Amino acid sequence: MHKIFKRVLACAVTGILVFSVILTSKQTTINSTAASSKKAATASLTQAPKYVFMFIGDGMSYPQIQAASDYLGALGQNRTSDILSGNKYLNFMKFPVAGSAVTYDSTSFCPDSASTATSLATGFKTYSGTINMNESMTISYETISEKLKEQLRYKIGIISTVNLNHATPAAYYAHQASRNNYYGIGLEMIQSGFDYFAGGALKNPNGDDKNNPQTNLYELAQNDGYKVIKTQAEAEKLTAADGKAIVIGETLADSDTLSYANDAKESEWALKDYVKKGIEVLDNETGFFMMVEAGKIDWACHANDAGSTIADTIALDDAVNEAIKFYNQHPQETLIIVTGDHETGGLTIGYAGTDYDTYLTNLSNQKISYAKFDTNYVKNYKANKTEFKTVLADIKENFGLLPSSDKDANSTSKLVLTDYEYTKLKQAYEKTLSGDTSRSQEEYILYGTYEPLTVTITHILNNKSGINFSSYAHTGLPVGVFAQGQGAELFSGYYDNTEIYKNLASLLKVN
Amino acid sequence: MHKIFKRVLACAVTGILVFSVILTSKQTTINSTAASSKKAATASLTQAPKYVFMFIGDGMSYPQIQAASDYLGALGQNRTSDILSGNKYLNFMKFPVAGSAVTYDSTSFCPDSASTATSLATGFKTYSGTINMNESMTISYETISEKLKEQLRYKIGIISTVNLNHATPAAYYAHQASRNNYYGIGLEMIQSGFDYFAGGALKNPNGDDKNNPQTNLYELAQNDGYKVIKTQAEAEKLTAADGKAIVIGETLADSDTLSYANDAKESEWALKDYVKKGIEVLDNETGFFMMVEAGKIDWACHANDAGSTIADTIALDDAVNEAIKFYNQHPQETLIIVTGDHETGGLTIGYAGTDYDTYLTNLSNQKISYAKFDTNYVKNYKANKTEFKTVLADIKENFGLLPSSDKDANSTSKLVLTDYEYTKLKQAYEKTLSGDTSRSQEEYILYGTYEPLTVTITHILNNKSGINFSSYAHTGLPVGVFAQGQGAELFSGYYDNTEIYKNLASLLKVN
Repeated sequence: MHKIFKRVLACAVTGILVFSVILTSKQTTINSTAASSKKAATASLTQAPKYVFMFIGDGMSYPQIQAASDYLGALGQNRTSDILSGNKYLNFMKFPVAGSAVTYDSTSFCPDSASTATSLATGFKTYSGTINMNESMTISYETISEKLKEQLRYKIGIISTVNLNHATPAAYYAHQASRNNYYGIGLEMIQSGFDYFAGGALKNPNGDDKNNPQTNLYELAQNDGYKVIKTQAEAEKLTAADGKAIVIGETLADSDTLSYANDAKESEWALKDYVKKGIEVLDNETGFFMMVEAGKIDWACHANDAGSTIADTIALDDAVNEAIKFYNQHPQETLIIVTGDHETGGLTIGYAGTDYDTYLTNLSNQKISYAKFDTNYVKNYKANKTEFKTVLADIKENFGLLPSSDKDANSTSKLVLTDYEYTKLKQAYEKTLSGDTSRSQEEYILYGTYEPLTVTITHILNNKSGINFSSYAHTGLPVGVFAQGQGAELFSGYYDNTEIYKNLASLLKVN
Repeated sequence: MHKIFKRVLACAVTGILVFSVILTSKQTTINSTAASSKKAATASLTQAPKYVFMFIGDGMSYPQIQAASDYLGALGQNRTSDILSGNKYLNFMKFPVAGSAVTYDSTSFCPDSASTATSLATGFKTYSGTINMNESMTISYETISEKLKEQLRYKIGIISTVNLNHATPAAYYAHQASRNNYYGIGLEMIQSGFDYFAGGALKNPNGDDKNNPQTNLYELAQNDGYKVIKTQAEAEKLTAADGKAIVIGETLADSDTLSYANDAKESEWALKDYVKKGIEVLDNETGFFMMVEAGKIDWACHANDAGSTIADTIALDDAVNEAIKFYNQHPQETLIIVTGDHETGGLTIGYAGTDYDTYLTNLSNQKISYAKFDTNYVKNYKANKTEFKTVLADIKENFGLLPSSDKDANSTSKLVLTDYEYTKLKQAYEKTLSGDTSRSQEEYILYGTYEPLTVTITHILNNKSGINFSSYAHTGLPVGVFAQGQGAELFSGYYDNTEIYKNLASLLKVN
């Protein structure tokens, strides 16, 4: 379970509105500082960009960005020099503006993706789990993308590596008390009339109740004029002349999402390919707005899988690079924003066991995501009660970790398991084999709700690399806001995440 | 031990230069991007600020800043509302520019204070442990403060809550292969001729060898024309007419530094008072440069003491506020920069055991720093083999944590120890009483090199508040760079920490 929905859930799902409407008066009072009014004045004098890219790394804050950057630097390090040559900057890290946004929501300092995406798309805070509605579930907020379509006739594209009706993409077109209403969100997606949806498959396309299926969402979309594409060959052929389109990845991974970057086949479309196609079909003289979510950075961080986190962060940067190429052709008319919705996992570049050292290149031994390891290996282990010796061989093959008894143990010493680590791994495997999903306080800290074996493998590999996670949930760190192009300077400073919407709306002159 | 010094230490201390001089050719190649040349051009067209404040929170990055801000927000939260009203912005968080600086040094992605302060003060990378010298220890770098004194006749002030010859303040006036050469650094402090030094006492003022003491540094300073002040009453009377001055705190805490903010008596000068006095004595028509270090944010983070970290971060912000008052009188001529040298401790706002919740107000129960608890309590426990029951009573009094058997256990439930936590605390106390400083891999992760009892108390209080630390050392997170005033826009973006010096030097037109 990737998200939890708190106080709001019970009332949201049942439709009982227990919160006083008086509370809604708070909506307009957030962070209206002198700095933001100065920015509003600047925005009104700036020509609105015609082409706006909004990249969101779900769960991506400074630790994820810097870890990816340091990892690339470590890989490129001249091994004969004793002097560290440092990090390799991702493309978006070089943008002229890099501000910070505060992410708390109406529930917690450790907010949810639905509420934070609501702030980014509409400028309002709300409860964890809610999409574009106020805390009493009485008001729906219109999103920046809806306003741009309606008021400026911009074409709109929504891309995500996770399900297209998942919280973050949904926040650009849907209005729901609960993010869990996937079918309802899917209906709103079709109703949006947006031009290009691309990425992971729709979740629950026949509704939540398997015994009582509703009309398939793809069918409804086709009836509504959408071209629905489910193969890469067809996606490659898509042009603007085809009209509204929904492009679903041909190869789907966990929960019907696009593959983690470190699991993907070479021939498989990466996030950048969906962006490239998006630019091709959305480009027009009036303008376009494209939201691109790298949703599995978050999932990998929830699972404390640093290798997959870094790979998906680099894949996001590759996608940003497509926008940069477009920007270079239209520098006066384009704005690119890259941000996160919140931090996930409490990732740190540094760990108690490695002091001032990191061994980031260790992570290059990871050949598979935690999720694919669960599917391709752990499922079989549980079915067959596989002996630990075989498991250890798979761990060596897929993560590089090896016991001290292994024949290769001397040559790759930084990956050799200590007795302490070996014992932890063995205990975790026993817990996995037991199938027992109950957790003592200690076990919850060790495993969260994840497969004990797999999360212990990534914990050990992370820690031996000088990386740590402190949580299986989101944290309260601010996120970076990187901006380049027309109006970029508005995103300077340290401000509330609702300001991102407000600055964008002022700049684009929508209301 | 707060810092470790790696490969460089052995050669630096003995004076043997084992690194090839060829390596020094690297010095000028760091991050010379198009963006930085654009900034240099901007800087040359901008009038140099006459008054420059450089605040450095040692070990302070986004987690420390946001945790302090969230803590203040949580304290001010309206308890009758279910809607979180969010964080309270620190003064410097509201500055118009908030960029990020990458902190790696020539040794590691988890750098040292000596090398990072070298980058801030001179624009060069060097090895961990080294102050203003290149990696082969053959070249000394002139600092921004030395250049300003020599080339522009600015008055110079250096303030720190830790020892005035500690790494960060030293990086503004000293040039040493090893930061551990405290006496040599003290001699350079006197030779600098800078106008105002204030804060913690000098470390090793009679040299490192107790059996062979050298001439007292304070005596040498007086002979060199410095007024040396060691009482608050005298400090209050200090004026510019007194000439060069060294002001040492009257009440000294651990390692002869100023008190942690949460230990200080009400009458005791806080960091802001040293800054206020600094402005008074440095203010002149030509200009001044003031470096202010909050050095104990770092020490508290090393010890994983969140309460003291937050209190000292707020104390830094109070000190920044004195600079803001001065800025308001001289807005066209003043520049204020607030940054960190690196992150310490891998602090996260979020913890596996509390999921999406935080209970930050728990931290208001902490009445004492880890260091003072060690001195005032743990020392006696070890001498007297105090029974655990008494220890528990002291823990309740000073940190608010209480066992489930305590009479108050029901009314303050978020602070009641679970069985798991109680057992951890008891085991830690046994380790403390044993006096055994050896550590297994597991024990090192649990306690680092700290007093097992004390670090376990702060770990439990942190975790119950929804806070965690992942390391006892520095980490690789970038730091925030907050700027307001003349030339502030130069500090926008995400860049190497050496750029902070380079932008400052361009802006101030020193070479």
